[in-house]
Amino acid sequence: MVRKLQVAVSGLGRMGARHALHFLDRTPRAELVAACDPDPKALAWAKQRLEPFGVKIYNDFDEMLKHEGLEAVVVAGITTEHAPQSIRAIAADKHVLCEKPLSTSLEICEGVLKAARQKPQLTVMCGFSRRFDASYRDAANRVEAGDIGRVSIIRSQTCDKHRNDDYFVQYAKFSGGIFVDANIHDIDLALWYFGQDSVVKSVTALGINARLADLKKYGDVDNGIGVVEFWGGKIAYFYSSRMMAAGQTDTTEIIGTHGKLVVNGNPQNNLVEMHEANGIRRDVPQTYYDRFEQAFVTESNEFTECILDGKKPPFQLSGAISALKIGDALQKSLRTGKKIDFNEIGEEIVEEKARL
Amino acid sequence: MVRKLQVAVSGLGRMGARHALHFLDRTPRAELVAACDPDPKALAWAKQRLEPFGVKIYNDFDEMLKHEGLEAVVVAGITTEHAPQSIRAIAADKHVLCEKPLSTSLEICEGVLKAARQKPQLTVMCGFSRRFDASYRDAANRVEAGDIGRVSIIRSQTCDKHRNDDYFVQYAKFSGGIFVDANIHDIDLALWYFGQDSVVKSVTALGINARLADLKKYGDVDNGIGVVEFWGGKIAYFYSSRMMAAGQTDTTEIIGTHGKLVVNGNPQNNLVEMHEANGIRRDVPQTYYDRFEQAFVTESNEFTECILDGKKPPFQLSGAISALKIGDALQKSLRTGKKIDFNEIGEEIVEEKARL
Amino acid sequence: MVRKLQVAVSGLGRMGARHALHFLDRTPRAELVAACDPDPKALAWAKQRLEPFGVKIYNDFDEMLKHEGLEAVVVAGITTEHAPQSIRAIAADKHVLCEKPLSTSLEICEGVLKAARQKPQLTVMCGFSRRFDASYRDAANRVEAGDIGRVSIIRSQTCDKHRNDDYFVQYAKFSGGIFVDANIHDIDLALWYFGQDSVVKSVTALGINARLADLKKYGDVDNGIGVVEFWGGKIAYFYSSRMMAAGQTDTTEIIGTHGKLVVNGNPQNNLVEMHEANGIRRDVPQTYYDRFEQAFVTESNEFTECILDGKKPPFQLSGAISALKIGDALQKSLRTGKKIDFNEIGEEIVEEKARL
Amino acid sequence: MVRKLQVAVSGLGRMGARHALHFLDRTPRAELVAACDPDPKALAWAKQRLEPFGVKIYNDFDEMLKHEGLEAVVVAGITTEHAPQSIRAIAADKHVLCEKPLSTSLEICEGVLKAARQKPQLTVMCGFSRRFDASYRDAANRVEAGDIGRVSIIRSQTCDKHRNDDYFVQYAKFSGGIFVDANIHDIDLALWYFGQDSVVKSVTALGINARLADLKKYGDVDNGIGVVEFWGGKIAYFYSSRMMAAGQTDTTEIIGTHGKLVVNGNPQNNLVEMHEANGIRRDVPQTYYDRFEQAFVTESNEFTECILDGKKPPFQLSGAISALKIGDALQKSLRTGKKIDFNEIGEEIVEEKARL
Repeated sequence: MVRKLQVAVSGLGRMGARHALHFLDRTPRAELVAACDPDPKALAWAKQRLEPFGVKIYNDFDEMLKHEGLEAVVVAGITTEHAPQSIRAIAADKHVLCEKPLSTSLEICEGVLKAARQKPQLTVMCGFSRRFDASYRDAANRVEAGDIGRVSIIRSQTCDKHRNDDYFVQYAKFSGGIFVDANIHDIDLALWYFGQDSVVKSVTALGINARLADLKKYGDVDNGIGVVEFWGGKIAYFYSSRMMAAGQTDTTEIIGTHGKLVVNGNPQNNLVEMHEANGIRRDVPQTYYDRFEQAFVTESNEFTECILDGKKPPFQLSGAISALKIGDALQKSLRTGKKIDFNEIGEEIVEEKARL
Repeated sequence: MVRKLQVAVSGLGRMGARHALHFLDRTPRAELVAACDPDPKALAWAKQRLEPFGVKIYNDFDEMLKHEGLEAVVVAGITTEHAPQSIRAIAADKHVLCEKPLSTSLEICEGVLKAARQKPQLTVMCGFSRRFDASYRDAANRVEAGDIGRVSIIRSQTCDKHRNDDYFVQYAKFSGGIFVDANIHDIDLALWYFGQDSVVKSVTALGINARLADLKKYGDVDNGIGVVEFWGGKIAYFYSSRMMAAGQTDTTEIIGTHGKLVVNGNPQNNLVEMHEANGIRRDVPQTYYDRFEQAFVTESNEFTECILDGKKPPFQLSGAISALKIGDALQKSLRTGKKIDFNEIGEEIVEEKARL
Repeated sequence: MVRKLQVAVSGLGRMGARHALHFLDRTPRAELVAACDPDPKALAWAKQRLEPFGVKIYNDFDEMLKHEGLEAVVVAGITTEHAPQSIRAIAADKHVLCEKPLSTSLEICEGVLKAARQKPQLTVMCGFSRRFDASYRDAANRVEAGDIGRVSIIRSQTCDKHRNDDYFVQYAKFSGGIFVDANIHDIDLALWYFGQDSVVKSVTALGINARLADLKKYGDVDNGIGVVEFWGGKIAYFYSSRMMAAGQTDTTEIIGTHGKLVVNGNPQNNLVEMHEANGIRRDVPQTYYDRFEQAFVTESNEFTECILDGKKPPFQLSGAISALKIGDALQKSLRTGKKIDFNEIGEEIVEEKARL
Repeated sequence: MVRKLQVAVSGLGRMGARHALHFLDRTPRAELVAACDPDPKALAWAKQRLEPFGVKIYNDFDEMLKHEGLEAVVVAGITTEHAPQSIRAIAADKHVLCEKPLSTSLEICEGVLKAARQKPQLTVMCGFSRRFDASYRDAANRVEAGDIGRVSIIRSQTCDKHRNDDYFVQYAKFSGGIFVDANIHDIDLALWYFGQDSVVKSVTALGINARLADLKKYGDVDNGIGVVEFWGGKIAYFYSSRMMAAGQTDTTEIIGTHGKLVVNGNPQNNLVEMHEANGIRRDVPQTYYDRFEQAFVTESNEFTECILDGKKPPFQLSGAISALKIGDALQKSLRTGKKIDFNEIGEEIVEEKARL
């Protein structure tokens, strides 16, 4: 019989529960053997939905780490636990798939990276779902094939549907800000298509509070514009929003010297169009999961494959940190109202007057 | 000074008034010198809108024909006058642009054709607006360039927006039926793209009354499907409707052995899309004039150019008769519920039992 | 531990192998326990790809039927075996998911139906993949919700990409003809959206051999047009083709008295658009499996769910026979060149002269 | 007889010749009575194309100004003459339609404005073609109707097709830079949709030379990104490019608190789609004139109408100066690499260290 990867999931909130089910039901080469969450409600769900399939349920992460035969852990609980749990899992010689962000703190992220580097035999991945999306990959293949010449400009946006509740406000307490939370995906795409080793030359960020004034309490905005210039003549510009009327509208343009690729220029929920008295209409995905569900499933499967077959992950953990560095700089630019410049090795240039 | 074509328009109803304005305002090489209509309301409009620009207004067609220097007449009044006025205009040595249909009677049409053939120096055109539409012409050029191989299948539809009044019912009294009135354009397109000399092998038509039961009084339907087979392995199939919710949705597919061209696969009123709480929406042209206004203007200009420069019209008057023959056969098939077959020279094959 | 459905797959050709993998990897509540095929090449594949996961490999269908604990069989081998194997599986008290068509013979199909009716406790389904497609289902929900009023006209097409080999010619030997093989899906959609109990009033079919002259040997065409009229004022019209340049382009329009739904009006392979020197371009799915892969997976899962949870299948086996009846009539119309009429209880009306 | 506006065109280069023909052929209420250009080639064209229609040809602007009965002048020659000729025309009591830009110098622009203000009875317009485009106007009407709530974010781009010659490099000598030449249209749109009295809070611009290194000689770039923040919580961000592969792709998004409008999200040359072996393709307009031809014609007609009927122009001349101020600030930001901040009355905030 073929061996299956023994996986556990930590954190059974909205996204964690989805990860658990992806490994339980849609990752043929993996076996979900354990899951944990300190929250009684999550545990009740797990008892009902996971336990009958032989999944052992824990309320303590460290107990779960000792589960016999456990090989890999998905870290998907609250953001502040991402890094600590990842580090402990690595210490316990487990492969790790950690939900983004590793942390909103660069220093803490680097702690995870350091831990991972000490165990090069382990697969340690940070979940950037778009890296597993068929359309973004198709675009990457075309870029690599030279179809559009040298990639020069990237436009990318992460735009959530407006919600009538205070979800985004509550969420802002921990999210790190719109550039670190939402545009982090676009930044990661820029690094993917420009090259992972691109060096930042400057960042500028601006934002407004068009509908969610309460976000200001946490220094956050509901619409953000960021521009990131890289050394060598490349510019990425980003938009993020929490107030889209129609739904999740994440669009990316990759503009090369000889052509352009557009990913999701025309958001659509499925292949149906409605002809109605007031025109022709189509539905749009309502959430990022509606848009990227299949990418998450691909992620589970490729994480498994990397471990079982000793393959290299499709992108490096260090990339998550590169992206966060840029996101952090954008947040700082938003906060200070200043453009921030960097030298050719990516060090922030501090203005003279400040140095005096 | 450059000479301008001296034109008159007969019939100042909805479409006739548009023709008059096209020649007055948007046909630089023509001069609208006269217009006529027996209806006092139309005359009042003409006095106010045309006369101040030097257009002489008549209430009698034959009087207008005698207008000094008149060279060309646009016949755009009621359908039953199309052929008689065209014939009289030709007799008076005027060039003629006649609104479609020449007549709903084949015999009468042939009368016009005969009159025109006796004066080969005259330009006599029947207005098939799609022949002047930039997109249909682009498709024709691609077909001619061989881009899609041998044209084999054509799908084409003429679909009007539903109206809350009884316009379509009133109109059905004189229209000749949905295949002769609406699909006549699609039939003409089929002859254009398949070749004007294509010989019909069979026709089949069906129809329903989905919303406009009163059309039955005139033997008409509000949704019609027609299939026309041509000798040599070509099939055109048509759809016409009077009940589209969104607007005018005239779509044509030209399917060749090596490619396909779609004209107006995605109807749209302009280049605006609206992102709203229930999805993404666009407007659709509400009428055929919204869709084909520019084609009508091109028609006026090319009619003028043909006469002034001695050019051949973009299509033959006889084509209008070929199209009507097919439309007529479809109407007969709809009426009888029978498929009608034709021999290789296009003569209807009468079934044996009937012949006995 | 939760019980999983014990499933076997018969026939490991192209589509059978896919079914086997869908049940092995993508149907969490089922367990693929056996598979069979008489062909050594297929067996070799199964030994390598399925056996290591505990799937028992057979070269004989009847042997496999005796596999201990087996509950359900997917019949996916050559078309001529669909009905006999289904009948034997039913006799052995197995649930059956049979690839389409049950048979190209109506009589044989009815044999399967009869067998199934004798064991009402068994789930016996025929695989119409579009019934499981998210977009077609979305359209069905909108129809049921009354969004477009009374469904009156359906246009639907099944159009395959041109192939440079003789696949379609070889395939025509057994396929039953283009209406029974390709448009059968569109007929099934018409029955779905018009209502399963719709009674045929007439059928007309025409076809040409535009690229594949050799199909004529088997009485088949490479482009077919069919029109099916139902009693009560409903018409469906179909197109099928084996020569599309771009790829699989299966489009359906559902036209109601108050609106229209279009499924797949703009075929696309993914969400990428390419801006190139000669315009803007997108890829199209190359095969029906590229278009409907997820629908097949949904089919596996729902078949499983029906059995485990005692649910009713999403559509009746008898529907497959209703569709085939219409397909058969279209083939007869194509063959004879005649429109075929039916009375209000769906019996063919034989013309007087024939009766004499 | 109805009076027609007596118009002259100065400058018969590419765009000037088009203006002349728009007034000659497509502006029914105007009469082109004169045209001038110092260039013999342009004069030869005018003799051949305009003179036969009664247009008097001049080689000197000031001579032409004295043309008897002349009421209005279109200033469309070289950019450096726009302002001087406009001022002289105003002095001679002529209405003026001046091609954009009035000047690339703010000071000179203000000279024109001052001249115009001294003759309030004259219509003095600066040609921003998008203000006359049906789609942009449709969007403006929807904004005004409150369809999208409060306009908060605008994204707009002006992207030209790549050219193999050195046109853009030659052009850069006089254009004033990409933000003043190309994005000036987008800036004008932002002022339109945000409100003409919006006060700039900051501007940031970046650019690269991806294909046209020679542009650097003139301080210009071939791809520019600009972000303009307005007081009151509004941000516009712009992109301009000289290297689009497919064609002219000018897209605008107007994002409100309750909806979004997209203008030209899917560039297309006409309504034809081509299904080919490598997918589905459509053509794109090749130049701004392909995209905006009808807008230019509308401009001619509305300019005429304003004068004849004493209507107010659709936008103020001062708006052209507001747009140029922002364009100028963007050019300065591009040049200095600095974000530029403005106080609440729109005055640039000079940094402390500079002030010391």
